[in-house]
Amino acid sequence: MGTQIFLSELFGTAMLLLLGCGVVANVALTKTKGNAGGFLMVNFGWGLAVFAGVYVAFASGAHLNPAVTFGLWAGGKDFYEGNADLGLAAVPATFGNAVLYIVAQLVGAIIGAAIAWLAYKQHFDDEPDPANKLGVFSTGPAIRSYAWNFVTEVIATFVLVFVVILFGNSPSGLGPLAVALLVVGIGASLGGPTGYAINPARDLGPRIAHALLPIKGKGSSDWAYSWVPIAGPIVGGVLAGIVASVMQNALGLG
Amino acid sequence: MGTQIFLSELFGTAMLLLLGCGVVANVALTKTKGNAGGFLMVNFGWGLAVFAGVYVAFASGAHLNPAVTFGLWAGGKDFYEGNADLGLAAVPATFGNAVLYIVAQLVGAIIGAAIAWLAYKQHFDDEPDPANKLGVFSTGPAIRSYAWNFVTEVIATFVLVFVVILFGNSPSGLGPLAVALLVVGIGASLGGPTGYAINPARDLGPRIAHALLPIKGKGSSDWAYSWVPIAGPIVGGVLAGIVASVMQNALGLG
Amino acid sequence: MGTQIFLSELFGTAMLLLLGCGVVANVALTKTKGNAGGFLMVNFGWGLAVFAGVYVAFASGAHLNPAVTFGLWAGGKDFYEGNADLGLAAVPATFGNAVLYIVAQLVGAIIGAAIAWLAYKQHFDDEPDPANKLGVFSTGPAIRSYAWNFVTEVIATFVLVFVVILFGNSPSGLGPLAVALLVVGIGASLGGPTGYAINPARDLGPRIAHALLPIKGKGSSDWAYSWVPIAGPIVGGVLAGIVASVMQNALGLG
Amino acid sequence: MGTQIFLSELFGTAMLLLLGCGVVANVALTKTKGNAGGFLMVNFGWGLAVFAGVYVAFASGAHLNPAVTFGLWAGGKDFYEGNADLGLAAVPATFGNAVLYIVAQLVGAIIGAAIAWLAYKQHFDDEPDPANKLGVFSTGPAIRSYAWNFVTEVIATFVLVFVVILFGNSPSGLGPLAVALLVVGIGASLGGPTGYAINPARDLGPRIAHALLPIKGKGSSDWAYSWVPIAGPIVGGVLAGIVASVMQNALGLG
Repeated sequence: MGTQIFLSELFGTAMLLLLGCGVVANVALTKTKGNAGGFLMVNFGWGLAVFAGVYVAFASGAHLNPAVTFGLWAGGKDFYEGNADLGLAAVPATFGNAVLYIVAQLVGAIIGAAIAWLAYKQHFDDEPDPANKLGVFSTGPAIRSYAWNFVTEVIATFVLVFVVILFGNSPSGLGPLAVALLVVGIGASLGGPTGYAINPARDLGPRIAHALLPIKGKGSSDWAYSWVPIAGPIVGGVLAGIVASVMQNALGLG
Repeated sequence: MGTQIFLSELFGTAMLLLLGCGVVANVALTKTKGNAGGFLMVNFGWGLAVFAGVYVAFASGAHLNPAVTFGLWAGGKDFYEGNADLGLAAVPATFGNAVLYIVAQLVGAIIGAAIAWLAYKQHFDDEPDPANKLGVFSTGPAIRSYAWNFVTEVIATFVLVFVVILFGNSPSGLGPLAVALLVVGIGASLGGPTGYAINPARDLGPRIAHALLPIKGKGSSDWAYSWVPIAGPIVGGVLAGIVASVMQNALGLG
Repeated sequence: MGTQIFLSELFGTAMLLLLGCGVVANVALTKTKGNAGGFLMVNFGWGLAVFAGVYVAFASGAHLNPAVTFGLWAGGKDFYEGNADLGLAAVPATFGNAVLYIVAQLVGAIIGAAIAWLAYKQHFDDEPDPANKLGVFSTGPAIRSYAWNFVTEVIATFVLVFVVILFGNSPSGLGPLAVALLVVGIGASLGGPTGYAINPARDLGPRIAHALLPIKGKGSSDWAYSWVPIAGPIVGGVLAGIVASVMQNALGLG
Repeated sequence: MGTQIFLSELFGTAMLLLLGCGVVANVALTKTKGNAGGFLMVNFGWGLAVFAGVYVAFASGAHLNPAVTFGLWAGGKDFYEGNADLGLAAVPATFGNAVLYIVAQLVGAIIGAAIAWLAYKQHFDDEPDPANKLGVFSTGPAIRSYAWNFVTEVIATFVLVFVVILFGNSPSGLGPLAVALLVVGIGASLGGPTGYAINPARDLGPRIAHALLPIKGKGSSDWAYSWVPIAGPIVGGVLAGIVASVMQNALGLG
């Protein structure tokens, strides 16, 4: 089961970050074909990055995000319900499994961001502004205020994890599209102040990649801000798990 | 059943307004990452706000809108068909239930708008134009004329409620996506003159929040206009219920 | 069966034109909230207009378009397969039924365009350019050349009808969304030269409405061009029906 | 079986290129209605071109792309699983079948690009810049560097083929929409440096059409670059087939 979790989350989160960092590179870096393509394009890019990542991480329930892992745990859910057709076992929520998920997500995020850098290598080399380069990797606030930035990340991640947990009550044929569209919506609606990390691995992994990679003309990795997109999403995810659980109990759904 | 209706509609409408007011804040307020993101981004933001809200309000049929409640009532439908798998009872259309739905929607809308304000707190503080601040909360006309603004809201809400009632005749696997896309379309097509309230709770709740919250540098809550996005949607919704009923009878569908 | 066809196609095509003309009004007319919203917004607006129209016209197979009616006829298909759950009979392709479909589509298109004018009444009144007013109702060429404009309409309508006929060979859970997305795609890809009428009723009905309605400051209804978006789509639709039939025979599908 | 493969891939790839080249023409050529419509519109245009093409190529598994054909082959998959309802046989991965697929794709791509040229004939004639004309047909790099352009095409095509192969592990009701959305996402995220050929037939076929057609005022067909969007996608597709196979083996899925 360790291989199943680790491979699935690592590949899935790498796919998420490759496409996610990719769309920011396309919009932000100089001379790209999608330059200045607009925030809605960024929202669709990240949403469809989730779409692809969820298909890749089919063997682990496709958390791709420690906030989801913590949220399911807090809400008393399994990490993965298993898949009888494929012969994949369910994954219970345990401390050991949580560590596996989160380490795989972080490693995958680093790898995915590094591959995005390769895909846009020449545009990084030609880009004069170091802040644009960091912005491809990690999020940063539009107006810096750790407290309010934290609040925004808590709210946005609450929405993500809360709605994902409730998906199961309205079965539809959408599959991975449902979470993709939810992420498009969260980005459009709540991404304005902080760039919607809503996922500690999505922010920390690429920030580590930014620090490690030999990026031409890079500036600071802005470690001072790095705790916000880690702590905010974890708090938001755990709150969502608890509130969803309370709500379902109040409705008599157990 | 009261708890079921109240919790479901309150949480769902709060989600709708959090994401809906959020996307307007992102496009309209100063210094956000989605600033000037365009009307199509606003349309997708509100459509996906409905998407998330419908998943949240799974236990009450996800009206999220008094015009839907009135429309179903006028069309002789149940408020909610129930869900045997989840053990949730059907909700008949009665006066008492209608009051429950509408009060929950209004309270939820106030709460959702207030949370959107928190998420964008610093951008509200930095925004110089009071009209932009009110515009995040409530709708206002592009050209003020109460009669014609009323007509536009009647037409747009008719489309919403009429098509929602007819969804059941073309079963698909889209689930909450169908109504989300319908709202994207109504916004793009009929949102030009009034900003498409098409929902009395969506407009009145945030207007109350705007009046009550200590928003820095806020201006008038424009109560003179407030009856239009209440009366227009109710008339449009009731008309839709009646016309849908007449049409189905004419087709011999009962 | 006459009532079934007539009501369904009339209401559905009215819905199509209300939302379709609406999105053009929103993008083109002065002072609207969606002013200059871009061609992609127009594409989504028309696609979702089809989406809503197809749900409304559930009782007749939702042609909404004489080119579809002619295409199915040419391809040897029924006009509507019926719906046993709803007790709706199948509609065979006969001359009489074709007349019913087309008359209902045309009347519905006139009504829908007129309602869109009401929804945007003040913006029509304030708009100084008569060409923008006509552009809300009917299509016109970017570069006028009847022969090449005709070719473009033939090609674009061929795509619509050909793919719609083939939908049935790849069952999916998309329902009305499939044709909506197809129309978004046709608009984005082939709408550049003529504004993609791809539907004689969509163009002629609103052109009649433009001629009849007391629109302030209106100019010519450009009848000289009007045959192109009628003849082009009919030829394209008939060709699509024939080619689809030949292709399916070649594959041994009958 | 030869007819089945050839007809299906030829028609499907022609549809893909007609709509794909069409959206670039709409955005890039002078005087079109979608002029300067933005990169997101291009992304949706190509995604929905795939959507239509997949429905058309229902009888062969809708590769539409030699990189998919090579990727499935490398991954040990059949080319097509067949369709019992339609009486269509499965297509095993053999050398002879691979040749049939690829020849049909290339011929279809040439035809589709030629029809797109007809649809935009007048806009080609009026366009002053030869580079814009070639850009409608074939891809070109934003910053020319054969090695890095090759890397980008390898990465982007890997994503396409890898996720397509994994689709089967997460059954959903999306059908052809899944691959369409994947292509929208790849374009938005990885299309910035090279314009995302991710398909040798998509690039070579239209380049041949550009060389052969009597396009007014055309310039070079840029054959020096032409190997990149052939070799990159083939390498990416084969790598994806191998990695997917290794991953599924590691998960015990065979």
